[in-house]
Parts: sequence; structure tokens; C-alpha cells
Amino acid sequence: MLFSVTMRVDLPTDMDPGAKRELLQREREYSQELQRGGEWVHIWRVVGSYANISVFDVADGDRLHGILWNLPLFPYMTVEVTPLAAHPSDIRAG
Amino acid sequence: MLFSVTMRVDLPTDMDPGAKRELLQREREYSQELQRGGEWVHIWRVVGSYANISVFDVADGDRLHGILWNLPLFPYMTVEVTPLAAHPSDIRAG
Amino acid sequence: MLFSVTMRVDLPTDMDPGAKRELLQREREYSQELQRGGEWVHIWRVVGSYANISVFDVADGDRLHGILWNLPLFPYMTVEVTPLAAHPSDIRAG
Amino acid sequence: MLFSVTMRVDLPTDMDPGAKRELLQREREYSQELQRGGEWVHIWRVVGSYANISVFDVADGDRLHGILWNLPLFPYMTVEVTPLAAHPSDIRAG
Amino acid sequence: MLFSVTMRVDLPTDMDPGAKRELLQREREYSQELQRGGEWVHIWRVVGSYANISVFDVADGDRLHGILWNLPLFPYMTVEVTPLAAHPSDIRAG
Amino acid sequence: MLFSVTMRVDLPTDMDPGAKRELLQREREYSQELQRGGEWVHIWRVVGSYANISVFDVADGDRLHGILWNLPLFPYMTVEVTPLAAHPSDIRAG
Amino acid sequence: MLFSVTMRVDLPTDMDPGAKRELLQREREYSQELQRGGEWVHIWRVVGSYANISVFDVADGDRLHGILWNLPLFPYMTVEVTPLAAHPSDIRAG
Amino acid sequence: MLFSVTMRVDLPTDMDPGAKRELLQREREYSQELQRGGEWVHIWRVVGSYANISVFDVADGDRLHGILWNLPLFPYMTVEVTPLAAHPSDIRAG
Amino acid sequence: MLFSVTMRVDLPTDMDPGAKRELLQREREYSQELQRGGEWVHIWRVVGSYANISVFDVADGDRLHGILWNLPLFPYMTVEVTPLAAHPSDIRAG
Amino acid sequence: MLFSVTMRVDLPTDMDPGAKRELLQREREYSQELQRGGEWVHIWRVVGSYANISVFDVADGDRLHGILWNLPLFPYMTVEVTPLAAHPSDIRAG
Repeated sequence: MLFSVTMRVDLPTDMDPGAKRELLQREREYSQELQRGGEWVHIWRVVGSYANISVFDVADGDRLHGILWNLPLFPYMTVEVTPLAAHPSDIRAG
Repeated sequence: MLFSVTMRVDLPTDMDPGAKRELLQREREYSQELQRGGEWVHIWRVVGSYANISVFDVADGDRLHGILWNLPLFPYMTVEVTPLAAHPSDIRAG
Repeated sequence: MLFSVTMRVDLPTDMDPGAKRELLQREREYSQELQRGGEWVHIWRVVGSYANISVFDVADGDRLHGILWNLPLFPYMTVEVTPLAAHPSDIRAG
Repeated sequence: MLFSVTMRVDLPTDMDPGAKRELLQREREYSQELQRGGEWVHIWRVVGSYANISVFDVADGDRLHGILWNLPLFPYMTVEVTPLAAHPSDIRAG
Repeated sequence: MLFSVTMRVDLPTDMDPGAKRELLQREREYSQELQRGGEWVHIWRVVGSYANISVFDVADGDRLHGILWNLPLFPYMTVEVTPLAAHPSDIRAG
Repeated sequence: MLFSVTMRVDLPTDMDPGAKRELLQREREYSQELQRGGEWVHIWRVVGSYANISVFDVADGDRLHGILWNLPLFPYMTVEVTPLAAHPSDIRAG
Repeated sequence: MLFSVTMRVDLPTDMDPGAKRELLQREREYSQELQRGGEWVHIWRVVGSYANISVFDVADGDRLHGILWNLPLFPYMTVEVTPLAAHPSDIRAG
Repeated sequence: MLFSVTMRVDLPTDMDPGAKRELLQREREYSQELQRGGEWVHIWRVVGSYANISVFDVADGDRLHGILWNLPLFPYMTVEVTPLAAHPSDIRAG
Repeated sequence: MLFSVTMRVDLPTDMDPGAKRELLQREREYSQELQRGGEWVHIWRVVGSYANISVFDVADGDRLHGILWNLPLFPYMTVEVTPLAAHPSDIRAG
Repeated sequence: MLFSVTMRVDLPTDMDPGAKRELLQREREYSQELQRGGEWVHIWRVVGSYANISVFDVADGDRLHGILWNLPLFPYMTVEVTPLAAHPSDIRAG
């Protein structure tokens, strides 16, 4: 099923640059693997914020929680999850 | 450019059923025409609410405002607009 | 999957008593049928409010939205949906 | 009586891993003992958050406060308590 | 057990004066009967608002909900309920 | 005059245990002296929170501020003050 | 003692012009009588709002509530009351 | 001096179309006269809302309040006023 | 022109006592000089908070910002500014 | 297209004075270069806050995000972005 997920990131300003670089690299690889796997369907940057709006297509809430909990940036994130349904006006809805 | 738009609808509970049916029919046609034209890219229902989360791909803010202002349901809506940018981790970003 | 759902009801104070009684009767039957069917797992009253906290076990977001949208009281409700996952400390979790 | 309790956890990101592991182990045992004792009736994870929604069935507010105050994670938690009553539509209500 | 309850009243400004007088009279009698019965322990006016802060000492949440739901002014009220426990510094606590 | 006062405490989780014990001991003595003096009329624990709801009966705002400002825990508190008046339905009001 | 009071007014847009004029005239006379009596010490308009920020110097909370409750515009107002004390840096404080 | 002003408009959905047209015409003329006079410096539409963000350059708060209070749409508006000062990085600041 | 200003102070609890004393002394002198100069017209303590409500009478927004920005406590403050106008019911208004 | 952007700055109070001076100098140069280039159209100080309200005229959301993300003060900022459109009453609108 589909979920809209907003993730806001708040990194400490005094984080070690090397540790930060490595953390962001892992986050990127983790995200891209899930994108290629078809579960992380969309990811957009929120203009002016260290945040993204994403859409996930996953089996259920347990799977979505597993994905989000294991994000390398999860301990620095505030995450908001909105479950979605098909819209009756969607031209692609069956 | 891309915008995330959340629309919440609050119709009076005593609206005339015929007027309501006609209003919703016009809303649906208006939305589907913009979907077919490629500007209204996504529309999802928010589970449990008379609301949708949509993504628009339009020339600029003037065009987006023109589209939203002319929604048949606009006088009954609360609309929230978030400008989007490409995310550096998006596998489809150039 | 599981969802926690909070429903707050706001009926007009001048509603016709007969129409109100009939509406509440339909709501009750609708709810109890879903409880007997196993999808509406729990329903509790929030002390001091015309509101309930419920737990649903449904196939997905589309099914949950279908259930909520068809509640006889839906036009008078504000609904909040929180997707749930199994908790690692739950003694009943596999 | 019944209470719905939402607990949100905010651990410092620089906590010593050993101290953290030991703290979480104690939290888990504490929770499971109360679950087995029948006072901590339900515990669910909130998808995408370090948080749970629980239901307690306890003698009174003094007992509930005693339970929550002694949670090993209590100093790192924001806790919200909602008193519940039987719902007139509940098929299991007497 | 003890509960702190805040009740805010919002009467329509065009209510019939006779109906209003009768409603307030019933509210007063209802409240005073519960005060005399020992369940409605304290009632104070919030300065500058049509609101009160009260303390109830009742058997449980079901009883408190029954009391509040039957307040003649309940349909015009927003009610907030906070469960209380004995405070360790209270000189009257055992 | 009467005031309802809500105090929320947020102690640093890494506070020295001895300093904390001494601070809480001073807070307790300070509170109990004012309770015995008749100015701190009620103190209740908010279930699930490091917080209390109190009622003060003091000469005026200057006196109340003096009391609160000198609480040993004041630097760690968020305090909310609501002035009270006699309620017309109070059976003990003159 | 001193109180800061913010009053926001929300009159129905379809109020009868004569009734409105008469109501505002009574409000003005009521306010000015209290200003001349020394209890309503200051009244300022909030720029851009149908609202005022006032300072009252009254015997206690009961007196202030009596004054506010009897404002002709009270049924159309949202009122916020903040108790004040002398500031240690005030050059006029004893 | 400069003020940033946000105006949100909420017209009743059942307003008489003729009365509405006349009201909007008067609003437009009122606004344009102040723009030509140099006091209403900027006016922008907020995308997706019946709202504008404006900048005023007026003598003082009394003048600004006089302008806003006399807006034909004022009874239907929520107005937020933010006083501005020159920014030290502004290349046009003296 | 007149402004209502609310200043909330949040000092670190581990501030060096000597540095704190010196800072508060400078704040006091700074405030009193502006009070004697007639620009800082009123200052009141908010009961129960490390905060004040003040009224300023200054040339314009630039002057007010200059005053506030240079408060010794400014880096530890949250400041809210409300522009004021003469109220038509004020008996002292011309 | 046009965007209104509000930036709030929260610098640590214990920042090294030299590092702070250098940071603010870079921020100023960065801002002024964009002002001279015509993309950062307006910048005003919010009276009483370490904040500014700005207007940008940029190609699209990607360009605006690039500008904001690279602000030297960005890690210390909370940024709010509002897309703007031409207002039908604007005397300068075509």
C-alpha cells in the first residue's frame, strides 16, 4: 500500500565532517537501493529545508517501519507518515 | 516546476444533493483534464479524510494559482502548497 | 494491517431529534457489523468527549478509507489515522 | 480502569552504546512483566517514530503514574495519557 | 480517583433567552447535586472566560464520562480531562 | 486570591545524582512550608508527567511570583498561571 | 493587582446595523466609566485587528471577572488574561 | 515605517453574487488608490489561497490601522502585521 | 509610535554565577536608562515566568529593533512585537 | 518566479567570536552578490528578532533551494518558503 512520508533532518552543527560525509553516503546508498527495489517510489526535496517528501509502496506498516527505522539518518530525523488510498478522480485508478 | 499540494474539503452538511452531485462532477472533470494535460501529476486520497495530496508540474506559481483558484471546490477548500526541488538521492535525477 | 483511528464527532446542536436518533442507530449497526467481521478490533470512548479511539485490522489503506468514508457520522467527524506496527517488546509478537 | 498512553522516546544520539543496550533491555523486561501481569494490555509501534501507543488496565491514576514513572526510559520520554470509558457501540460492552 | 477537568462553554449568541435561562438553571442544579454528593469536589471560574476548572473524585473513567456526558451544557462545551495522582510533596498524602 | 498553576519539570538527564537529591529535598521542604502556611492550597501529580497542578491562595500577583520564582526547581520549570474566581454554581461560594 | 488583558472581537457580519451601533455605544460607555474609575488603566488597539490590549488594576480575580463578564461585547469576545507583578528593573517600583 | 501584512479572506460561500462583485470592486479601487499614493508598496497573491502578502510604508501604527480597518473586505479578513526594519545586508540601505 | 513587546528569557542553568550577575546588572542599567529617556514606557513581570510585558514609545521600527537587538540578554530572549494604535474608547485619546 | 522567504537564525550563544564574525561576513557577501544579481529582490529585518523576510525572483524551486542551501548561516536557520503569484489588484501587474 501507499504512504506519504515527510522526513526532516536536524544534524548537530558540530558533527565531525568525516563522520557526516560517511553517514550521508550510507543514507544515499540505502535510499537508492530501496528506490531501485520499487518500494521507495518518489523522493523530493522540500525547497528551503533539510527535508524530503517521499512516497512509499510497501506491503504494510511493519515493512514501512522497518525501512524507516533503519535509515542511517533516522536518529536525526522527525518523520511524519500519512497513509494513502486511491483517489476516485485519478485517471490511472482502475 | 514541481509543487506538493494538500487540499482539504469541507462541504456544508446541508448542501442540496443535486447541487453537490453536479459540483463534484465538475471537480472530477476539471481534475482529469489537468491530469491528462500533464500538469496534475499525482493525486492520492488521504485515508480517513475528505482530502487529497497531489503533485503538480507547472510553469510557475502564477499557473499553479490559476489552476487551484478555478477548482470548482476551491471555495470549500483549505489548500497548502509546498514547492519541491530535485533530491540529490533521487535515482531519476540527472 | 493495524491502524489506530481517533474519531471526533461534532453534531449541530439544532439537529432534528428524530433524524439524529436514526443517524446514531445506523452508525451503531454499521460499527457493530464491522466489529463482528473482525476489522474494527477495538472501540473506546474518550472520557469527557464525543469521540472514540479505535483500532482497525484491515487489508490496506484503501479498505480503511472505504470503511471510514461510509460511516453514517463521517460528514460530522474529524478523523485522525495512525498506522501501527508490531512492537518488539510485545509478548504476543512472533 | 482503561487508559490510552502514547510514549515518545528521544534518546541522545551520543549515548554510550553499552549503556543504551542495557537501558533498552531493562525497559523490555519491565514492559513484558507488566504485560504478563495484565496491566499493560496492548503495545503497538507508531510507524516511522520512536514511539508506542499502549493501553493500560489499572486500578487508578496512582497506579498508572507509578508504572510510568518507573519506566527505565521515562527520563527520555514524552508521555500523553487519555482516560477511556466503555463505548456504547462496543459489542463486548456489557 | 481524581481528575482535573476544564470545561469551556460556547453558547450561540442568538439563543432564546428563556431556553438559555432554563438550561443554565438545570446545569446549576445538576452541578450542585454532584457537589453535595462529593464527586464534584471543586469548581472555579477561569477569570475572563466562560469556562471552569473543576476537580472530580469518582470511581473510574466510566463514571466520570457518565457525569460529563449528561451535563445540560455538554453539547455546547469543549472538555479537557487530566487524570491526577497523589503528589509526593503533598502534606496530606499518606 | 486563587490561582491555578501548572508546573512542568525538565531536569537534565545527566544531572549529578547527589545534587539532584539535594535539589528535590529543598523543593519538597519549600513546598510543604507553603502548604502548612496555607498559601499552597492543593498539589496534584499529573499522571504520566513530571508535572503538577496546584492551587494557590495568595495576597496578589506579586506574592505568587515571589513564591514561584524562588522554587528550587524554578530554573528547570515551565510554569502556567491561570487566575481563578468564585464560580456561581459553587455550593461553598457565599 | 495588575492584569494584562487581550480582547479579540468577532461580530457576525450580518448583524443589524442599528443593534451593532447601540452595542458599540454601550461598550464604549462601559469602558470609559471603568477608565475614569481607575480600574481600566490602559487600552490600546492592536494594529490590523478588531482587538485591544488593556491593563487593569483591580482588587482581585473576582473583581476582574465581574468587569469582563459584563462587557456588552463579551459574548463576541475571546479574552486572554495574564497576571502581572512589579518588575525589578522598573524605575517606578518601590 | 515599513510593515509586512498578511491578509486572509474568508467570504461566506452563499454571498449574493451582486453584492460580492460590488464588494470586490470597492476593495480593488481602495487598494489601488493606496498603491498609487505610495503607502501600499507591494501586494502579492499567496499561491493556492485567498490571501495576499503586502508591504506598507506608512507614518505609524495609527495610520496603518486606519488603512486596514477601512478595507471593504476587513470584516471577512484575518490580518497579521509584522513591523520591519532596515536589514544590515540590504545593498539599498544607507 | 507605541509597541507592546513580550520578552521571554531562557538562561542556561549552568551559566557562571559571576557572568550571570554581571549580565543581569548590565540589562538592568540598559533598561533603566531607556525608561528614564521615555522610550521604554512600561515594564511588568509576567507572574510565574522569566518574562516581561513592556510598552515602548519610539520613532519607528528601526529604532525599536536597535533597542531590542542591543539588550544584553537579547541572545537568550524570544521577543514578540505587537504594533499598537490609539483605541477609540481611550479617554486619553485626542 | 517570486517567493516570499522568512529566515530565522539561532546561533549558539557560546560560538567563538572570531568564527562568528567570519561567518556573518560571508553571509553578508553571499546575500549582497545575489541582491546585485537580481535574484534576492528584497530583504527586511523582522523587528525584535534575529530574522529576515525576503523576496526572491528565481527561475524555479531548484534554483531557490540551491541559493538557500548554500547560505553560510543555513545550518543555523529555520526557513519558511511561500510561493507568490501576481495579485489582480496590483497596479504594476500587466
